[in-house]
Amino acid sequence: MIDGTLHFEETHLPEILKLGRCTVDYSLRTLMMVDSLEMKDDDRAIILNSAKKCSENRIVITHGTDTMTETAHYLAAGKLNKTIVITGAMIPYKFGASDALFNLGSALAYAQTLPSGVYVAMNGQFYNWDNVRKNRETGFFEALK
Amino acid sequence: MIDGTLHFEETHLPEILKLGRCTVDYSLRTLMMVDSLEMKDDDRAIILNSAKKCSENRIVITHGTDTMTETAHYLAAGKLNKTIVITGAMIPYKFGASDALFNLGSALAYAQTLPSGVYVAMNGQFYNWDNVRKNRETGFFEALK
Amino acid sequence: MIDGTLHFEETHLPEILKLGRCTVDYSLRTLMMVDSLEMKDDDRAIILNSAKKCSENRIVITHGTDTMTETAHYLAAGKLNKTIVITGAMIPYKFGASDALFNLGSALAYAQTLPSGVYVAMNGQFYNWDNVRKNRETGFFEALK
Amino acid sequence: MIDGTLHFEETHLPEILKLGRCTVDYSLRTLMMVDSLEMKDDDRAIILNSAKKCSENRIVITHGTDTMTETAHYLAAGKLNKTIVITGAMIPYKFGASDALFNLGSALAYAQTLPSGVYVAMNGQFYNWDNVRKNRETGFFEALK
Repeated sequence: MIDGTLHFEETHLPEILKLGRCTVDYSLRTLMMVDSLEMKDDDRAIILNSAKKCSENRIVITHGTDTMTETAHYLAAGKLNKTIVITGAMIPYKFGASDALFNLGSALAYAQTLPSGVYVAMNGQFYNWDNVRKNRETGFFEALK
Repeated sequence: MIDGTLHFEETHLPEILKLGRCTVDYSLRTLMMVDSLEMKDDDRAIILNSAKKCSENRIVITHGTDTMTETAHYLAAGKLNKTIVITGAMIPYKFGASDALFNLGSALAYAQTLPSGVYVAMNGQFYNWDNVRKNRETGFFEALK
Repeated sequence: MIDGTLHFEETHLPEILKLGRCTVDYSLRTLMMVDSLEMKDDDRAIILNSAKKCSENRIVITHGTDTMTETAHYLAAGKLNKTIVITGAMIPYKFGASDALFNLGSALAYAQTLPSGVYVAMNGQFYNWDNVRKNRETGFFEALK
Repeated sequence: MIDGTLHFEETHLPEILKLGRCTVDYSLRTLMMVDSLEMKDDDRAIILNSAKKCSENRIVITHGTDTMTETAHYLAAGKLNKTIVITGAMIPYKFGASDALFNLGSALAYAQTLPSGVYVAMNGQFYNWDNVRKNRETGFFEALK
């Protein structure tokens, strides 16, 4: 039904989607498995290029939360005509009691319903790429304005 | 941010929202805690009335999966000018390995982004109230046409 | 910004878009110029094929109002993963005092914001392909249910 | 169907909606009829208050193009949980050959489909309140980034 791509860096994604009993039609691509604090613009260029080249127009990217907004800015500068939703988890899935399922569920829904643009989906909300930051004290994402 | 109401029948909902680290601004109302197979139109009238009377315009209803579509039809007949999303879980949250978090994450996102109407959100997808059924053999929801 | 295609049958479309000072990035394709009452499934197959083959995922089709819903059904059966909005005018543009500008403005907006699916946009509203008819007495479109 | 309010300053609005054969269910309120270049924050406070107090959650505001973005900023600061779409016309309706119908058609559609937020709808596109300016040389609206 949806032609979403899930650019992911965690091998847990298929398991999470199975748990969620997800029937969305998607294709998965593993681009890199790095600590997001160590991501450089070269890595972001790979993500942008993959988002640009793929045939899908609705894309979910799972990403470490620390530099999620930097990647959002980088992707927005690419001015692709696609709906791109970046999400992740504060508590890694493998640790249990994770927000991964909740966030991925919302990210897939946002990818299917929001107009073209780059968004961050965390905490049940979506944020435009240019209006979001991670509050490092609370661990919650919030609007800048 | 969103004025969603969560009509729910399970005491697990606050726990699920906390796990999901949800920061959506909502109010919770417990309407009934019944087996959905035993729900009657009197029960559905209570849900419709609550959805009509509440000040919120974006509403998520958690519901047993067996009669989810019947309730969707009942609510659609009420022709409220609101976005109403019905969701639930195939595997109860208390059993573990549940799809509850995933479904609630997607339902909250759909409630914030879809136009007025009545929808069922399951398996990562959304369905119009008049175009969905639960496949009782597979346990997945699917479009009628 | 949007990659909409306008499948149209009227040479007035560029003029209407110019009047509307439209800056949406689109490509225009003329598929046929026929009276919609004389359209056959062969014609609809051409439209479906064009919608399928084009690289765009958000499509507006201008169409005579008499068989708009038939074409909507035909296109829906194609189950494309695209947002397709069919619109038209009750009063032809060349006659003046036409609803063409208003309808095209709304159709372009719906194409940019609605999830994948087939819709009819008339009278400022949008209708799912399976829930709309033209009331031939009043000349207004209305929901079936 | 939609509970949109049209805050307007022109007596031409009913005529435009009639021309567009609009069947959207709305209520109209005339707040002021001033040159938008002479609008002050006192005037914007009246608009914000009206948007806040009205029972509707999907609102279209017609507005002179020169200070449309200033009003958008003012309304956004009010952080209402509603979808507010500001639109207008470069060529006044009474002069003929106006973009008013096209813009109003798109604004009504955007009001029915976009999530809560403040937007400017011009030239067939929508812009977030914080990412739009009127290019005074070309007369077209454009994204800031």
